[in-house]
Amino acid sequence: MSDRFLLGHGTENDFVVLPDPDGDRWPEDRLDAALVARLCERRSGLGGDGVLRVVRSRHVPDTPAVLGADLERCEWFMDHRNADGSYAEMCGNGVRLFLHVLVGEGLLDRSACADGVLVGTRGGPRRVGAGPDGTYWVDMGPARPFGRGEATVAGRAFPGQAVSMGNPHLVCLTDADLDALDLTVRPGVDPGLFPEGVNVEFVRVLAADVEGADAHVRLRVHERGVGETRSCGTGACATAYAALAHARPAAESGDDAVRGTVVVDVPGGRLSVDVSAETTVLRGPAVVVATGELTREWLDD
Amino acid sequence: MSDRFLLGHGTENDFVVLPDPDGDRWPEDRLDAALVARLCERRSGLGGDGVLRVVRSRHVPDTPAVLGADLERCEWFMDHRNADGSYAEMCGNGVRLFLHVLVGEGLLDRSACADGVLVGTRGGPRRVGAGPDGTYWVDMGPARPFGRGEATVAGRAFPGQAVSMGNPHLVCLTDADLDALDLTVRPGVDPGLFPEGVNVEFVRVLAADVEGADAHVRLRVHERGVGETRSCGTGACATAYAALAHARPAAESGDDAVRGTVVVDVPGGRLSVDVSAETTVLRGPAVVVATGELTREWLDD
Repeated sequence: MSDRFLLGHGTENDFVVLPDPDGDRWPEDRLDAALVARLCERRSGLGGDGVLRVVRSRHVPDTPAVLGADLERCEWFMDHRNADGSYAEMCGNGVRLFLHVLVGEGLLDRSACADGVLVGTRGGPRRVGAGPDGTYWVDMGPARPFGRGEATVAGRAFPGQAVSMGNPHLVCLTDADLDALDLTVRPGVDPGLFPEGVNVEFVRVLAADVEGADAHVRLRVHERGVGETRSCGTGACATAYAALAHARPAAESGDDAVRGTVVVDVPGGRLSVDVSAETTVLRGPAVVVATGELTREWLDD
Repeated sequence: MSDRFLLGHGTENDFVVLPDPDGDRWPEDRLDAALVARLCERRSGLGGDGVLRVVRSRHVPDTPAVLGADLERCEWFMDHRNADGSYAEMCGNGVRLFLHVLVGEGLLDRSACADGVLVGTRGGPRRVGAGPDGTYWVDMGPARPFGRGEATVAGRAFPGQAVSMGNPHLVCLTDADLDALDLTVRPGVDPGLFPEGVNVEFVRVLAADVEGADAHVRLRVHERGVGETRSCGTGACATAYAALAHARPAAESGDDAVRGTVVVDVPGGRLSVDVSAETTVLRGPAVVVATGELTREWLDD
């Protein structure tokens, strides 16, 4: 059973998940960059945006460095690799799937996650929880605006709000037909504002027709270094912040904090984001498609 | 165990394989077009170019019509669906994987396939065999030349040989740098010669450096209705025929049949084609990557 895997996705960010609670099935010298890349190949491997190894933090050599004093509070570590085999820090869609697998594999009790548990990632500890409706949530930290910019697609300019979620975003609210945008080419942006590149969100505000939500938007996103994707967790959070900030009545009260709940439809499904003065919580589905085992012939190939 | 699957590929034509020997696990009213399409989705499903159901011919309602008098000789039927859920006729890469699964699942003895067995497909019965070296072969029928044509890529013309393998091909031998060709756009061809479209092969003849082969070529292929693919079984056969016909000493002997063995490197791996006066035999690898089971949550989703 040592070569068991799960295939799953969170709003179509898809992953090969490798249960390895005690760190002895997929140690780092076995799960090297070449094997990760082979696993993620969509035709000759299992296919995925990345690999998530489900392992207790104490069995991972680099957790003392990335988790520091929080190491003891994080029983579980999301050992997340990109499809090219490199190490990844955090993924709001991946960590929901990670928690779903912990619960589904019987490694964590669903009821124990109602108020959230701390999960270790290479981006630090994250609070993640399971909702009573079957969705999962993750505390993504606060959104921080840092000015205004402009994205250009096929010669047309889209003004936007620059927002940091740890990584940089440019959120462009628009009345344009989102389906007509050509995002096969990277949108043009001001390199002075985004020296390390930027994720660009094109957002259409819809009628606020979802119960309990303050706004409902539709999003297409172009991720730096990747291209258009089916979903982007930090992009959904930056988008929710920008949509609420835009709709906020200007200076009507002394409290100028941006807060509220925004339903964000991405190409891969539906997310919901709670924005408060302190933080941003991303909520959405996670699905395990299949469980399986790698064959000896493939492993030896 | 009724929702068991295998994932595999033949030179990176990849398939979801569903073992269903007695036709009771995946009957047609269950394995409908919508489920096939969901299975083949690369992010929210298992991912594949298509689905191969492994079933005895007598359990499939339409085999009397497609196999006729050969029905009794074909114990096994490759129920092949395209990724959009439509029915497919034959695939030289898929049928190798099909036989590999029959052998691997213990449904057919490898030694019994040395001289080939007849497998039913919607394109009729096909003789398929297992080689002692672990490869598989399939009799693809004769190549039939039908004139000369020209493909245009980025304004540059490539003269070629038109060859039918049941489906139409235009094989362009060239000294150009294959890697530099932009095949993201469909090559231009003469619609008069190819009223139903055409698969276009760009072929570079390499030094004949593989033992036992009369020629060694490298191939990139643009399939009609699909785009560039990692491999194309009929394209490899048409290519082998055209390469041998091109190299044949003109009128040196009274025997003008095209024959020989050609090693064909495609982006997804290495194939070998035996061309004789009567037929064309395609040979190559097949790999099962993993076995698994679909989850209830995905099936009910």
